[in-house]
Amino acid sequence: MSDGTPRPKVLILGAGFAGLGAARKLHKAPVDVTLVDRHDFHTFQPLLYQVATDVLDPETVGHPVRDVVHHQDNLDFAMATVTGIDLESKTVTFSDWDPQTYDYLVIGLGSRVNFFGTDGADEHAYPLYTLPDAVRLKDRLLTNLEAAAKRPESVEQGALDVVIVGGGATGVETAGSLAELYYTVFPKDYPSLDMTKASITLVEHGDRLLAMFDEGMSAYTLDTLTERGVTVRLGEAVTSIGADAVTLGSGEQLAASTTVWGAGLQSVPIAGELGVDLERHRVPVGPLLNLEHHPEVFVVGDMAFTTDAKTGEVLPQLGSVALQAGEHVGKTIDRMLRKHKDPEPFHYFDKGTMATIGRKAAVAVIPPHDIHLTGRAAFALWGAVHLALLSGGDSRMSALTNWFWAFSTHDRPSRMLVHPNDDD
Amino acid sequence: MSDGTPRPKVLILGAGFAGLGAARKLHKAPVDVTLVDRHDFHTFQPLLYQVATDVLDPETVGHPVRDVVHHQDNLDFAMATVTGIDLESKTVTFSDWDPQTYDYLVIGLGSRVNFFGTDGADEHAYPLYTLPDAVRLKDRLLTNLEAAAKRPESVEQGALDVVIVGGGATGVETAGSLAELYYTVFPKDYPSLDMTKASITLVEHGDRLLAMFDEGMSAYTLDTLTERGVTVRLGEAVTSIGADAVTLGSGEQLAASTTVWGAGLQSVPIAGELGVDLERHRVPVGPLLNLEHHPEVFVVGDMAFTTDAKTGEVLPQLGSVALQAGEHVGKTIDRMLRKHKDPEPFHYFDKGTMATIGRKAAVAVIPPHDIHLTGRAAFALWGAVHLALLSGGDSRMSALTNWFWAFSTHDRPSRMLVHPNDDD
Repeated sequence: MSDGTPRPKVLILGAGFAGLGAARKLHKAPVDVTLVDRHDFHTFQPLLYQVATDVLDPETVGHPVRDVVHHQDNLDFAMATVTGIDLESKTVTFSDWDPQTYDYLVIGLGSRVNFFGTDGADEHAYPLYTLPDAVRLKDRLLTNLEAAAKRPESVEQGALDVVIVGGGATGVETAGSLAELYYTVFPKDYPSLDMTKASITLVEHGDRLLAMFDEGMSAYTLDTLTERGVTVRLGEAVTSIGADAVTLGSGEQLAASTTVWGAGLQSVPIAGELGVDLERHRVPVGPLLNLEHHPEVFVVGDMAFTTDAKTGEVLPQLGSVALQAGEHVGKTIDRMLRKHKDPEPFHYFDKGTMATIGRKAAVAVIPPHDIHLTGRAAFALWGAVHLALLSGGDSRMSALTNWFWAFSTHDRPSRMLVHPNDDD
Repeated sequence: MSDGTPRPKVLILGAGFAGLGAARKLHKAPVDVTLVDRHDFHTFQPLLYQVATDVLDPETVGHPVRDVVHHQDNLDFAMATVTGIDLESKTVTFSDWDPQTYDYLVIGLGSRVNFFGTDGADEHAYPLYTLPDAVRLKDRLLTNLEAAAKRPESVEQGALDVVIVGGGATGVETAGSLAELYYTVFPKDYPSLDMTKASITLVEHGDRLLAMFDEGMSAYTLDTLTERGVTVRLGEAVTSIGADAVTLGSGEQLAASTTVWGAGLQSVPIAGELGVDLERHRVPVGPLLNLEHHPEVFVVGDMAFTTDAKTGEVLPQLGSVALQAGEHVGKTIDRMLRKHKDPEPFHYFDKGTMATIGRKAAVAVIPPHDIHLTGRAAFALWGAVHLALLSGGDSRMSALTNWFWAFSTHDRPSRMLVHPNDDD
């Protein structure tokens, strides 16, 4: 293709699972790829709760984008923040870079947390969707703990009570991991504190936890969390969040020195500028994952409202869906250009769904025979799969080291408050 | 000693090498120890330059204080910031804690960077004395790099030029490690940048580098750095530091998108409140490392002006001196209380001095026969000693992993900008 004619330009916005998947599948395509992200790292979102609860270092769950892509000759990476997309002139503008034109555009800019207008959530709740979110939540938990260590009587007054809103995977995984931190790790390091007086409450609006799994698994999850010291409140709505308490729909107040928000997502602002009506806060795409009136524009990952071309099901906002959708788009653009094969409609190949509830406890469903696993077997499988998925070699080694220490010694490796903005 | 009479209270300010050394040696003493630090982590200061130049994660070079001390039954830790010391009422005040009284006080609050009044240094120079310093410098280097990647022509205009002030261990180690990052690691990750156009200049006021070593070693250091791409300017003073340039005494200007300050220390403010005249910014102490008029108050580490009781030499501000001085104070307090042995004057046992210049290059002097090593042997020794010294088991594993990757693959594991204060 080096006959002097310029190669088509593919601009990929977002270096999450979707963006990276698309980039990788274009490595042999006759195109110039530019991958853009506001951060210089890819975030392994399924493990953010482990950063927040101090099992893994941020450096293990984030991975430098350039490390992931530096073997790909037709690709450049730029750290920049998107401010606008003009579909007519095929131009993307940035707050910190010159405007870029494209022939093909892949948008995988994710979502942002949805507080559903809950009073006080914006100010007081700690979401858990990005790596900075996770670092902030971890800092908050450790700061409260160090303050309580100087006034042990404050624990009984609620100084360490945590409320977690949302009984999906984020809420359940955070609750399980936090229970270990509170009731196994901290009592050793903070002998003056009576951690049994510190409560963890998981509030879920529906009538069961992990609604994407079957009812037996939900019951197992409830039992396991309860055994480990988490109070689960089902069928309760959170109506307001304050600096030290959460108010439920019934008017009941729960002490909450920290409120974790794991309850929902909404679209990023740029999704509203694509000239299509959003569905459930997401951008609807066709079977090739592109826009109806702009077939050169693809939307993938959490940002997209994606319907499986084979089953007709709306696909969930999961990393595995994002990765496959991104890869599919990469292949589709390659096929469009080289015309050696026709583009195919997108079908999601479900390799299984898993959630961990804490040490040696997890739930997993593995197609095609819907094998259901709970307990240690599911936990071991979960560990193996996540290790395999972490993007880079050294992250894998580091995760292994950290997990090994956390799960074999009941200890946490990175319990520190390092603030680059500290005055000293 | 549990006959009902309260045990003497030992208050240790600072959890650096000195404070931790004192705390550990008191583990069998009939006292109640309270260890206080403004951070919840101990910093392994000799490796800060590796965090700044992206070889090690911050979590490897910092280590949670509670992990280090949680096996010591007579010790409590508190994260708090000292605001004042009243020697008469034997009380220490804190900005974020109730005042604490003591029977014995051990002060090891370190130093702070001394810009010697250099114009603009306060605003523009990046010191390298604390872990937040190291994280800030790393962020600066990576941010500049990402900006340059979007405008490759800016490299030739100085967008990545670095000036390092001070040819002691901090300056030399930072220059060597940065040269590796610039001329070996970045060219792979940033193929569009001509890194040969990015300069690293080390400015030293004296006539040789690493003046604490002999002249042959200084010459070896100069040759090695020069070979690796660092421009060394000896006999030059820095008179002012601006946003993108450094001015030398001769009036010459060097482009400097980042200026690293590795040139000197001064006392922390609290050192001036101990009723003694400082010597070279440090608190003079007697042979037992305590104050003349307050024998119950010990000053150790970088903060102290310590004279070796055997050799009469003034001891340097090194981690190994701080650790031994702290341990000595712990033993002295134990002996004062139990009266089973007389306290002894402090003598520093020099186990050797080392500095690394980069991959497979270092200098080392090992007493008592003053064996001088340079090159690979010194580098291997340096690695072994620092691994052995890192405080905790998991830090050691993690350092090993990171070093293994950095030195065997010419790659760096943690090249990421994670800001807890990011808006997303």
